[in-house]
Order: sequence, then structure tokens, then C-alpha cells
Amino acid sequence: MDSGNFIGLIIGRFQPFHNGHLEIFKTISKECDHIVIGIGSAGLSHTFENPFTAGERHLMISHALWEQGMDNFFIVPIVDINRYSVWVSHVESLVPPFQAVYSNNPLTRRLFQEKGYEVRASPLFNREMYSGTEVRRRMLEDEEWMSLVPGAVADIISEIDGVSRIRDLMRDLF
Amino acid sequence: MDSGNFIGLIIGRFQPFHNGHLEIFKTISKECDHIVIGIGSAGLSHTFENPFTAGERHLMISHALWEQGMDNFFIVPIVDINRYSVWVSHVESLVPPFQAVYSNNPLTRRLFQEKGYEVRASPLFNREMYSGTEVRRRMLEDEEWMSLVPGAVADIISEIDGVSRIRDLMRDLF
Amino acid sequence: MDSGNFIGLIIGRFQPFHNGHLEIFKTISKECDHIVIGIGSAGLSHTFENPFTAGERHLMISHALWEQGMDNFFIVPIVDINRYSVWVSHVESLVPPFQAVYSNNPLTRRLFQEKGYEVRASPLFNREMYSGTEVRRRMLEDEEWMSLVPGAVADIISEIDGVSRIRDLMRDLF
Amino acid sequence: MDSGNFIGLIIGRFQPFHNGHLEIFKTISKECDHIVIGIGSAGLSHTFENPFTAGERHLMISHALWEQGMDNFFIVPIVDINRYSVWVSHVESLVPPFQAVYSNNPLTRRLFQEKGYEVRASPLFNREMYSGTEVRRRMLEDEEWMSLVPGAVADIISEIDGVSRIRDLMRDLF
Amino acid sequence: MDSGNFIGLIIGRFQPFHNGHLEIFKTISKECDHIVIGIGSAGLSHTFENPFTAGERHLMISHALWEQGMDNFFIVPIVDINRYSVWVSHVESLVPPFQAVYSNNPLTRRLFQEKGYEVRASPLFNREMYSGTEVRRRMLEDEEWMSLVPGAVADIISEIDGVSRIRDLMRDLF
Amino acid sequence: MDSGNFIGLIIGRFQPFHNGHLEIFKTISKECDHIVIGIGSAGLSHTFENPFTAGERHLMISHALWEQGMDNFFIVPIVDINRYSVWVSHVESLVPPFQAVYSNNPLTRRLFQEKGYEVRASPLFNREMYSGTEVRRRMLEDEEWMSLVPGAVADIISEIDGVSRIRDLMRDLF
Repeated sequence: MDSGNFIGLIIGRFQPFHNGHLEIFKTISKECDHIVIGIGSAGLSHTFENPFTAGERHLMISHALWEQGMDNFFIVPIVDINRYSVWVSHVESLVPPFQAVYSNNPLTRRLFQEKGYEVRASPLFNREMYSGTEVRRRMLEDEEWMSLVPGAVADIISEIDGVSRIRDLMRDLF
Repeated sequence: MDSGNFIGLIIGRFQPFHNGHLEIFKTISKECDHIVIGIGSAGLSHTFENPFTAGERHLMISHALWEQGMDNFFIVPIVDINRYSVWVSHVESLVPPFQAVYSNNPLTRRLFQEKGYEVRASPLFNREMYSGTEVRRRMLEDEEWMSLVPGAVADIISEIDGVSRIRDLMRDLF
Repeated sequence: MDSGNFIGLIIGRFQPFHNGHLEIFKTISKECDHIVIGIGSAGLSHTFENPFTAGERHLMISHALWEQGMDNFFIVPIVDINRYSVWVSHVESLVPPFQAVYSNNPLTRRLFQEKGYEVRASPLFNREMYSGTEVRRRMLEDEEWMSLVPGAVADIISEIDGVSRIRDLMRDLF
Repeated sequence: MDSGNFIGLIIGRFQPFHNGHLEIFKTISKECDHIVIGIGSAGLSHTFENPFTAGERHLMISHALWEQGMDNFFIVPIVDINRYSVWVSHVESLVPPFQAVYSNNPLTRRLFQEKGYEVRASPLFNREMYSGTEVRRRMLEDEEWMSLVPGAVADIISEIDGVSRIRDLMRDLF
Repeated sequence: MDSGNFIGLIIGRFQPFHNGHLEIFKTISKECDHIVIGIGSAGLSHTFENPFTAGERHLMISHALWEQGMDNFFIVPIVDINRYSVWVSHVESLVPPFQAVYSNNPLTRRLFQEKGYEVRASPLFNREMYSGTEVRRRMLEDEEWMSLVPGAVADIISEIDGVSRIRDLMRDLF
Repeated sequence: MDSGNFIGLIIGRFQPFHNGHLEIFKTISKECDHIVIGIGSAGLSHTFENPFTAGERHLMISHALWEQGMDNFFIVPIVDINRYSVWVSHVESLVPPFQAVYSNNPLTRRLFQEKGYEVRASPLFNREMYSGTEVRRRMLEDEEWMSLVPGAVADIISEIDGVSRIRDLMRDLF
């Protein structure tokens, strides 16, 4: 809480949390005293694009980071508000105060810049492979996906039977 | 995540987090492997009953618990949904899975019991003194309040100028 | 559906459905070919003022009317919209078309009159005794309440353990 | 209400109610003592995909079933809630208690299964012809559509001038 | 739009617009190039505290100011958002940009101050007499009220039969 | 306010206000004593389809009309309600009373006709060139766009740096 404490905010959907996210957090955590991790679209779940609840994603992120020995983070679910003009205030009210935002999303960047925040680019790591879309596609098509996510995340998805959920959501009964 | 992992949920408004909350958490943490701390009425702020935002309360709780050497907790803001019949599902979707709920609130107890959860009573510690109402009253009337809250909470309230906010909200200009 | 078909709308909270409601419906059903019964505040439940869900109230009303041999009614839950200026349109979109509204509530009467509807007064039957407030008070204080409601309603409340719910909601643990 | 009373839930949009729906209800009604019919997306109307209000659909279903001599059903409009994680609780609060769900929709099936319900497949009847999409297409293109719906439904659509509404919604003025 | 253009924001409920409001606007209009008039609680109507719709209040204000030869104002209805932490952003998104806020309300003052706005006190004029509460009380009790409001407002209330609405809302049928 | 006062309603998104809108307003203003201009989708901003806030659009319209010497108009932001069955009541509650609606949109026309309003076609002026889509496309691709909008609108877009906003929203960082 002293003035030397630098807090960075990063927002993602984490459907699911994968090794690309982990690498970003490792890199950013060197620049920040604490990271605030916003779980975006926290109200969405049970669709192919957004299979996991905010609570399940909270569990994945925290266990994956603890597994790495990291503990200087806050995790905050952020329910969509669908009014971009008030979205930054919405985020500000839900998360601890922060000094900079990490994002490559044009809308997120613009909204925080208009409110006067410093916005930094996120580092990127092999986006073709390390993406939620690719992980979900492999789960659906019964390909190998565990190597794309941290061990703790694979354990949690197995425990909540996440692959079945994704396949059930895409199954046509007739 | 193994089957021996017992997670307890406790929900409060924490306006602000005080020593009574801290004692409860210390007691409960002996019974649980992890505690999920739900920040209730997360959308409310800037009123005398609910002066602090969910983000400010998140900061207070995490720093107060870290100060005690505790780190086996998750903090999750829970925005009101105003439909009691769906409230337990709303909470379930936002927090990591839990096995028991700690609450003395009759409505909270009933709602979780109807969904089949084990509900335990929260331990109580000198409720006349250690209550959010008493802390806010002292702040408003310029009495000594810092002894009622953990040191980290006093620091955060000072940094965000929280006492001024409470007094301003109750000030009549004319 | 022929032009001689006269449909009357009546809206209540039915917390719970009691003999006063039943008498009103019997009287009105002589003036109407069909009655549309709107369950008001359908989203509210689990409070002392509104203990029962819309689904439970639906069950009470239908069984109580079937018990009387009545079947010329529609039951429609109406979730609150909290914008009186659009409330009549909200009701119109949820219920089958109707020709008259039965109500003694000043706001309801005014809102439907401003939209051009014929509004008739509801007949009243011993309002001190036959009121939801009185039924709930007797349940809470363990007085005789079953004589105030139709037999089918007493059976349903017993089956869903409704009296326990009301008492639990008012119970102070300490 | 005795323990031998088996209630099945089936949810559809019924835009409009057609002969395929009627056949499903006839089949299911042999397995159930009562059917709860949920009108899904009850808030939607006046679009080509969802032309009719919940009230109009309520009227269609009840008259079509009465025409068949059926009266062991409840009809309940269900407004969308757009949070799948709380949707089952939302439905539970609006409809009378039920023991099984009839659905072929993968999401509906999964959501009710996760809450522990028995989910049965709906019987299907000539889905190319008996579908809301086909009925609306024929209405728009001025083809014969009345043979696809029960007589009572054709009467109601005629009375509310439903075909004009569908054509007007698709008409380009210039 | 040049940099010398000073715009002041003032928000009220205007239930109804009265001579006290008019005096405030006359005074403020000397300090500002344009006034932005926010109609607060724009969604509320048809209650004793908030009898008139936002549209009716819009009409009252514009005609009363035009009657005075004023035309350097914008009127903007502002629907409540019930999240104080995002309320200033909500207002900012609905109204033209402004440089200062006129308010005596402690919450409004605090919220705009926290976002860095200059907040000025509103001038006050005989608040016992010139208040919406007093105007509505006189209407209800059939006392003389027209002298408390501008002539144009009295005309509009008469045209929309506003006094009857207020009396109907408070009338007990039995 | 006398009975000879004819008020016409016209609703658009005005993203941004262009010369086509201006010509429509000039034509309509000859048929009406006052025009009520509804800013549709008032809650949307910061997307390529809807870049400007309701407040910014309010400013554009009022300055463009004042520039023409017009002052017989009301501007009212109308936030989407996403329930077409209540949309007309929603609009009625926000705007001053009106006698006719100008629209070429099939849905808008149908909804107001069902409520008994006179609906007139809007005059159209070179829709290929004078359209919000074309103005935004030219801004994005750095083509000449100022000739498509009134001078006051070009000034305001320049002052709020609107072209940068549109380009930022479409920019891919990597």
C-alpha cells in the first residue's frame, strides 16, 4: 500500500486458462508488485465459446499461479455491463485500485485511455497454439489438449468433467 | 483439489472489514482448507450504510489476512441479484465450489439449506463493539475507530480518505 | 374466441391464495367467460411478505379452482418491471387479450384507465380475516390458519413445508 | 398432489404452436399426470423469428389443447434471463414442481442434468414440415400454412391479424 | 463550441417544475453559456412522490423557460442506474460535455467531486414554499397551487389532467 | 400547447448526424409545430457501428439545427429496452406527447401503428451518400467526409477527436 506499490490490471475470459496466459502473467509480474486479474464475461457459461463459470475459472487461475509459487495477485469476476461508456467505472468499482492496464484489445485500450489510464501491450506467446479457441476445439474433437494448459488446470477440468460439458453442448440428439 | 480439500463459504458486506470479521476468519480457517469470502452487495457504495466499493473492500480483506500470514482464501465480489429464488445459483456460478456455508443470517441459511448445503453458524465476537454500524458511527462522529479494525484496514481507509467520504455523504449543505 | 367471449383480468400476489380470493373468483367468473389471473411480483419469494415462489402460487390457485370445478381461467406469472409507465404494456404482452380489469388498487386502476381499459371494482369479503397478512401472521405465531384457505392450498403448503419456511425466515439465531 | 402425481416439464418458443407440438403433447400426456408447458423467450415478439407475444402464444396453446379435450396442463411464460448458470433456478421459481424434463436441445438437457433432473427426449414428428420456421415462411410467402397448425391456432392468428404482422415486419418501404 | 463556451449541469426530479427551479435557472444562466438540465429518476412516474413522466416534465421545463425568453439549455432525461459508482459515467454518456455541476445534494456533490468536477452550490429560494412536496400536497388537498409554478407549467398540468392523477393515486376505493 | 400544436416524432441513431438527416428535419419541420427527435440506442457508444455517446449526438444535432435557425425541436435520448412489446410505452414515457411518427423502419412503423398512431414515411435524400455507414467508412479510410455533415457537426467531431476514436476501435495491435 505504500507509494512504491505498482498494481497492473489484466482482463481476459480465460475459457480456459492456458499456458499463454501463464506466460503473460509471469512476464507482467516482473513489472508489477501485484496483478489484478479480471475474469471478463463472468456471467457467461455453458456455451461452446464460454463453457466454464466464473467460479471454475477462478479456481483454475489461482491453482495454476500457486503451482508456480506466485501469490501477488487478486482475482475478480467482472460481469458484463453492455454499456461501454460506463464499463471502466464498473471495473474500477469492483477491483482494487490499479496504475496500469495490460491489453491488446482495441476497445479495452481505447476505453481506459479515454479515462486517463496508462495502457501497455500484453506480451504474446504463440497465439495459434495457446488460445482458448484451440483448447476448446481439441477438447471437442478428442485431440490432445492437456499440454496447452497448466497441470492444475487440467486437473480441475478433469474433476468438473469439463470435456463432457463441451461435447454435450455441441451434441445433436437426432 | 483432492477429496480431502474442504472449502467453506462465508458472505458479508464488510463495510468495513473489522476485528470481528478477522476473528471469525481465524476460527473458521481451522475447520477449512480454504475459505471463499463473498463480498455481498458488491454493487453498492457511496451511501452511509455501504460507503466502500467492492474493490476497496477486496483490498482491505486481502491485506488484513496477509498481515496475519493467512493465504488460503479466495475473495469474490457478489453483485445483488434481487431474486432470492436464483441467488444460490448466482453465488455458485461466481465462486469456486464449496462444501459448507457459514452464516447466521436467517434468509441466507434457509436459501442454502433448501439447495441441500450444510450450513454452519458463524462464531460471534462482541457484536456491540465489532460491527460495521459501530465503526461507521464512530467515523461520522469523530470518535476513536481504528482500534476496531486491523491495522491494514486503517491504513487503506486513510489512503482512500474514507472518513471524509462518510462525512461528506451525511453533510447537509444548508 | 368468438366475439361473445368476455375475458376479465385480475392481478394479485396470492401470498398465499386464500378463501377471500376464492370468493372473488367465484363472483367474477359469473360475469366473464374466462378469467386471466396474473400472479403479481412473480420474482419475489423467500421473504416474510412474499414467502412463496410464483410456481408454488400457480399450483395453489389451479388446484383450488379445479377443486371447485372451475376451469375457465388462465394463470400467468407477472415479474415486476418497476417502470409504471410501461407496466400495462408489459402485462398486455404476457397475458391473453382481455376486455376488463378487476382491481381496487388505486395505482393499478389509474394505469389501466389511462390506457383506455374498463376497470371494475373487485368484490370484497371480510378483509380483516381473509388477507395474506393475517394468514402469514397466524402461521408465524402457530395459530390456526387452515380455515382461511381452500383445502387444496393447505395441502400444498403442507407438502412444501411452507410454515417452516416462514418461521425460518423470521428466526434470529442468536 | 399425491405422491403418484407425475409432472413433466417441456419448454418451447411456440412461434406459432403447430401440429408437431400437438403430437408431442399428446404423446407425453400419456406418460405424465400433468404437463407444465413453459413458453420460452416470453419477452420476445414482433420480430420475424419471434412474431407473437407470450400472451398470444398462451391463448394458442390453451385453445388448441382444450379443442383436444386435454386439461391436465399448466402454461407458464418464461422470460429469458441470459445467465445459463441461473436459468434452471429461474425456471424452478416460475413453474409448479416437476419430476422430469422433455427436451432435445443440448443446452437445456445439459443444464437440467447438472442440477440432477431426469431428462427425456421429446418425440419428433416430421420436423421438416412441422416447424415454426416453415409455418412463418409460408405465411410470409403467401403459401398454404393452415394445415400445419391446429384449427384453434389458425382462428387466433386470423383474429389478431398475425400474417399481416409478419409481412409488415419484413416489408421494405423503399 | 469554442473554448469560451461554459456549460453547467444541474440535475433535479422536477415533480413538478416550480418557481424555485425557475429562479435557480435564471441565476445560473448568468454564469453559464449553456445549461444542461438533467431530469433525474426519469423512469419514475405515477406515484405520489413522482407523479409525472419524464416526457411531461420535459414539456414543462422547456415551455417555462421559453416563456422567459431563455433558449440556451439542453434537457436530458436520466434514468436511474442504482450503482452510484458508475452513475457519473452514466450521466456523462447521456449529456453534452459540461464544465461544472450545480448541486446541494451531498451524494451528487461527492460523486462528481471524486471524478474531478468543479461542484458549485445551487442558489436557494424560499424552500418551504417552492418545493415539489408542497406543490403536490396542495394539489392533493385541493389548495391553491398555481401560484407556485410558472404559467406554462400550470397550463400543461391542466392539459394532462395532472391533479386528477395525483388524487387517484392516493384514493382508497373502500 | 394549444390544440393547433402539431408535434411529430422521429427516431434515429445519428451516428453521426449528417446532411440527409438535416434535409429530413427541414422538410418535416414544415409539417409540424415542433419535432421531437429521439436519439435511439442511446446507451451504445465506442463501437464502429455506434461510435458516439448520446451526449455527443445531442450536441451535434442541437448545434446543427441552431446553425439553420431552427429551434422548434426537443431532443431526447432513448436507451434500448429490448422488449418490443413495451417499447412504444417506453418512448411515450420519455418524450413530450406527439401526434404522428415519421419512420421508414418496418418494425418501428408496425409497433406505433399497433398502438394507434399515425405513421408517416420519412422523406429520403440520396441514401447511398448520406448515411452514417458511409460517413464512418470514409473516416476510417481517411477519405473526405466533412462534406457529408453540417459544419457544426464537423466542428464537434473534430473537438472530441472522433475520427481517432473510430480508427482506434478498428486498429489491430498485432
